[in-house]
Amino acid sequence: MRATLMYNAGDVRVVDVPEPSIQNPTDAIIRVTYACVCGSDLHPYHSLEETPDGRRMGHEAIGVVEQIGDDVARIAVGDTVIVPFAWCDNTCVYCRDGVTTSCVHGGFFDGASSATQAEKLLVPQADGTAVVIPAGTDEALMPSLLTLSDVYLTGYHAAHKGGVEAGKTVVVIGDGAVGLSAILASRQLGAEMIILMGRHKARTDLGREFGATHVVAERGDAGIQKVLEFTGGEGAHVVLEAVGHMPAYEQAYGIVRPGGTISRVGVPQYENAPVGFASLFGKNATLTGGPATIRAYIEAALPQVLDGTIAPGKVFDRELPLSQIAEAYRLMDSREALKVLIRP
Amino acid sequence: MRATLMYNAGDVRVVDVPEPSIQNPTDAIIRVTYACVCGSDLHPYHSLEETPDGRRMGHEAIGVVEQIGDDVARIAVGDTVIVPFAWCDNTCVYCRDGVTTSCVHGGFFDGASSATQAEKLLVPQADGTAVVIPAGTDEALMPSLLTLSDVYLTGYHAAHKGGVEAGKTVVVIGDGAVGLSAILASRQLGAEMIILMGRHKARTDLGREFGATHVVAERGDAGIQKVLEFTGGEGAHVVLEAVGHMPAYEQAYGIVRPGGTISRVGVPQYENAPVGFASLFGKNATLTGGPATIRAYIEAALPQVLDGTIAPGKVFDRELPLSQIAEAYRLMDSREALKVLIRP
Repeated sequence: MRATLMYNAGDVRVVDVPEPSIQNPTDAIIRVTYACVCGSDLHPYHSLEETPDGRRMGHEAIGVVEQIGDDVARIAVGDTVIVPFAWCDNTCVYCRDGVTTSCVHGGFFDGASSATQAEKLLVPQADGTAVVIPAGTDEALMPSLLTLSDVYLTGYHAAHKGGVEAGKTVVVIGDGAVGLSAILASRQLGAEMIILMGRHKARTDLGREFGATHVVAERGDAGIQKVLEFTGGEGAHVVLEAVGHMPAYEQAYGIVRPGGTISRVGVPQYENAPVGFASLFGKNATLTGGPATIRAYIEAALPQVLDGTIAPGKVFDRELPLSQIAEAYRLMDSREALKVLIRP
Repeated sequence: MRATLMYNAGDVRVVDVPEPSIQNPTDAIIRVTYACVCGSDLHPYHSLEETPDGRRMGHEAIGVVEQIGDDVARIAVGDTVIVPFAWCDNTCVYCRDGVTTSCVHGGFFDGASSATQAEKLLVPQADGTAVVIPAGTDEALMPSLLTLSDVYLTGYHAAHKGGVEAGKTVVVIGDGAVGLSAILASRQLGAEMIILMGRHKARTDLGREFGATHVVAERGDAGIQKVLEFTGGEGAHVVLEAVGHMPAYEQAYGIVRPGGTISRVGVPQYENAPVGFASLFGKNATLTGGPATIRAYIEAALPQVLDGTIAPGKVFDRELPLSQIAEAYRLMDSREALKVLIRP
């Protein structure tokens, strides 16, 4: 079958690989019908070292179940399913707490032997991981349903962990698809004042459509000053950091209000950061976030997409076949595309 | 009047200084009747550079109001009051949120021109800051009431910000007076399993009396392993970090459970720390805490002390007159004393 491998920074190719096969009785094999490229795929696209055997790419998928292991009971061959970016048994002590990305039987598709930018996908812990889309669902809803495998619910995770609710002022740092999703989620959670820090008009326009009330194009100190201006000098109750680079983190603690919360979902491209008296501690700011616990949120979000309450699939502004996925990476890296839907 | 000044690391002296006088109509002057030395006073005791004019010391006090400014209405001359370590108007936008340490008219006694290890104290924003102790209160309760100016409520702040509640497993790092207070507060908030990381028997004994169910004397990796053992490999829902040094922080993220919270009240003696995928982000851990918002908690804690529900004053194991405060610093620095009460 055809699958996407990355061999070096900027070097993405679609190549022939062996078809996946059931390894454990809890596995399932799906035929991928919808996949996409994630902003986080651009991190290795910038920095991957030479990898002669290639790194399998992709962690967002909708597909049709082709085969199930003997212990799989909650999904059946022929079902169309959403596959979150992390697999989990959905029954362990951490899953029961909702921290599905820390499942004791869990893992991440990224860089694993199975990944979603491919014709077929091995899904470990299939009963816990995959969520069935009702038969007969309008095909036009599939892009929005695909966002429940990562991007929309990663934005939701940021807002949920940040404690967004009615009356809270929210700043979203980053106008990528996750940042825009965080706006949509914040609006769903009742936030009225939502400030988007971003500078790409097509994106900030979608941000406004999703619920942003203010847009700040400035970065660094100028951006901080602008946010303080919009908030009467007080800063934001909640800052949703959807970038992952240090300048975004520095912006976050510059604009968070005393007693407020910074919620990160951009995968940090740093390990150490300021957390002392001058940054977080002095103003009793809270730092939260992490890999989005998608699986814990899908059941609640699915009906919202099916009934049209939210249309997070608007983040897809291009569609390409799997054979042209290298072009999808290029378009996203150059910011010509916000997020590219891939049809294997 | 006599006041405590620090001139250099380890150099604490009681000297004559001018009596304080009302500077603003919102000020009050109190005659200090109870003060004490704080664990955080030991940070400058270790590291203060030569300061020819001396640094005024002390931020915990009970005293009798001697004089009030024209705008002071809520306290009267003759009242006995608790003075928290930070002054605040208790009416500003941050105070109304409970973040009294970020008050727009606030400040910290530490290092200011007025400090509590002295015969008299200038209290700015006296109406917002000082809390009256009912007339006729038993003198024997004063040490416990004094802990409401900092140490007990700093422990409470850690527990409150960490979300301690029934069913949560709590680890307290540090067997100083704040750590022990955090145990007492966690017990009040309903925690059943409370693990104290500390190695000084007299202190860990008091920790057990305050509610600790387990004591871990080991530090570093050995301490982390021990906590994991006690928690079935899962780690703690809440880690209360009451030290402020990097090894304590490293221990904290080593033992926090996925989705759990680290709440810091030890003033960080570092600015940068690990917060990336390998420490906080990967397991969706939350980092919170800061200078304790004491003022927001006093009204609720006062009746608990007055009716004997809690006796946080047990952290005082020595009492000295102001003239011997240098010895109090020495005793606490050498860990011969847990916390020393000072009678000016």
